[in-house]
Amino acid sequence: MSLDQNWFTEVGESTGIAFSLRITGKLHDEQTEYQRIEIYETTDFGRLMTIDGYIMLSQRDNFLYHEMLSHPVLYTHVNPKSVLIIGGGDCGTLSEVLKHESVKSAVQVEIDERVTRLSEQFFPELCGANDDPRARLVFGDGIKWVTDSEPESYDVIIIDSTDPIGPAAGLFSEPFYRDCFRALRPGGIIAQQSESPLLHMKLISAMRRSMRNAGFSDLLTLNFPQCVYPSGWWSATLAGKNVALRNIRDQDIVDKSFGTQYYNLAMHQACIAQPEFFRREIEV
Amino acid sequence: MSLDQNWFTEVGESTGIAFSLRITGKLHDEQTEYQRIEIYETTDFGRLMTIDGYIMLSQRDNFLYHEMLSHPVLYTHVNPKSVLIIGGGDCGTLSEVLKHESVKSAVQVEIDERVTRLSEQFFPELCGANDDPRARLVFGDGIKWVTDSEPESYDVIIIDSTDPIGPAAGLFSEPFYRDCFRALRPGGIIAQQSESPLLHMKLISAMRRSMRNAGFSDLLTLNFPQCVYPSGWWSATLAGKNVALRNIRDQDIVDKSFGTQYYNLAMHQACIAQPEFFRREIEV
Repeated sequence: MSLDQNWFTEVGESTGIAFSLRITGKLHDEQTEYQRIEIYETTDFGRLMTIDGYIMLSQRDNFLYHEMLSHPVLYTHVNPKSVLIIGGGDCGTLSEVLKHESVKSAVQVEIDERVTRLSEQFFPELCGANDDPRARLVFGDGIKWVTDSEPESYDVIIIDSTDPIGPAAGLFSEPFYRDCFRALRPGGIIAQQSESPLLHMKLISAMRRSMRNAGFSDLLTLNFPQCVYPSGWWSATLAGKNVALRNIRDQDIVDKSFGTQYYNLAMHQACIAQPEFFRREIEV
Repeated sequence: MSLDQNWFTEVGESTGIAFSLRITGKLHDEQTEYQRIEIYETTDFGRLMTIDGYIMLSQRDNFLYHEMLSHPVLYTHVNPKSVLIIGGGDCGTLSEVLKHESVKSAVQVEIDERVTRLSEQFFPELCGANDDPRARLVFGDGIKWVTDSEPESYDVIIIDSTDPIGPAAGLFSEPFYRDCFRALRPGGIIAQQSESPLLHMKLISAMRRSMRNAGFSDLLTLNFPQCVYPSGWWSATLAGKNVALRNIRDQDIVDKSFGTQYYNLAMHQACIAQPEFFRREIEV
């Protein structure tokens, strides 16, 4: 069966997969300095943002990604006060991060201000923390920001980027991880979106090698469902600066003062379990 | 972007999702007494079987579904000897079940013999156990088979069916679960594919209610990734006849004599963790 103009389709030429959501209309279409941003209304997934034809997020299922990129790393760090977010222009990660009372400062460095402004307009539920006095929104180059950071200035760096092609490729490189390592305090942790365990094992292995070469002593790849991303299965990789990533603040998770839709203590323990094929691949 | 004839697309009218795999050709197309079976060659997922336009399985990712429908229930039962599989005509579940040395007999009751014959031809890797002397392949009505079964004749019943529409709808009903309850020995367990946690929570809740009404004292819904099924996230629900489903044979899992691609002890523990929204929904 074929799809008509009532569907938005993301075609994965490199994966042989295409994923479509049924739409009722396009709400916005804009070519920014960096990329083309489109926003659609869907029949079943709420609003949808795409960049250069790739799905960034839907209202229905972004909670999975945003919770899993934020809470596992923040409940692994012993006392995260200072957080840097690279990318994350839709502000969903920032919003989750600032639910943590320990966090005194969260800097978000997004290259394209239009992503944030359109998110404020079309996805206001993700932007509720933008005016939090602890939040600082910077629009600029995240790689340069980390290079220029003072040594030992952050507890956690969350890399919430697009796929490792084009401008985001540098965010998956050893020099970038070296700069992150320098910018992290002792016990600091990176959390980075790391694509699909089913489709991108080579990328995940290469990332982990680069992180290790950059000085990170412990690595841990989490996995979780994410319907609108290729294969519906996604991952994030944590890299620790002299910290054991399987030690988590169990009781703080149980006692957390905010609600979540996916994350809880059991799901934290679940997301760090390693499927057989994954375990074999990364042990090589 | 639109898709040309080089893609097979499954359109979910009820979900607002469509999923496509790029194909190089169609290998088979047959209208059987029950349904239309098509087999395609894909560029990235090996061979693909569809029934009435819905994806049944791909060579690349069926290991997830087949392992998770078989091993969790078999390592939860204290000593599974006699297994009944309802549906499962592609024989992938049968093949996983017979990896367990404790299993002395596995009966597979599939309504459409052509599914099995085409699987033997196009997916021989799933049919390696069809000639196992412990296997019995029956072609007939699974609901009637269970109704006609002797009381207390099976340790485990695996319901490996299509979606709960059309002929498979009866497999999600309380009368069927009552028959299963009767056909199970004490300590026996059902494992049934139960659709997507993201898309089909109402169905899962209703199933669980019917299972409980039919007499099952403990229920446990597992979740796992399944790229080619709607949302990429799938579930199976266990129902126990006087047995606690969180007690598993840990050491036997660690010591298992066969290889797996996804399942291991950590993944068993992970698959039974309940996301927040899921926990809230089923507690109601």
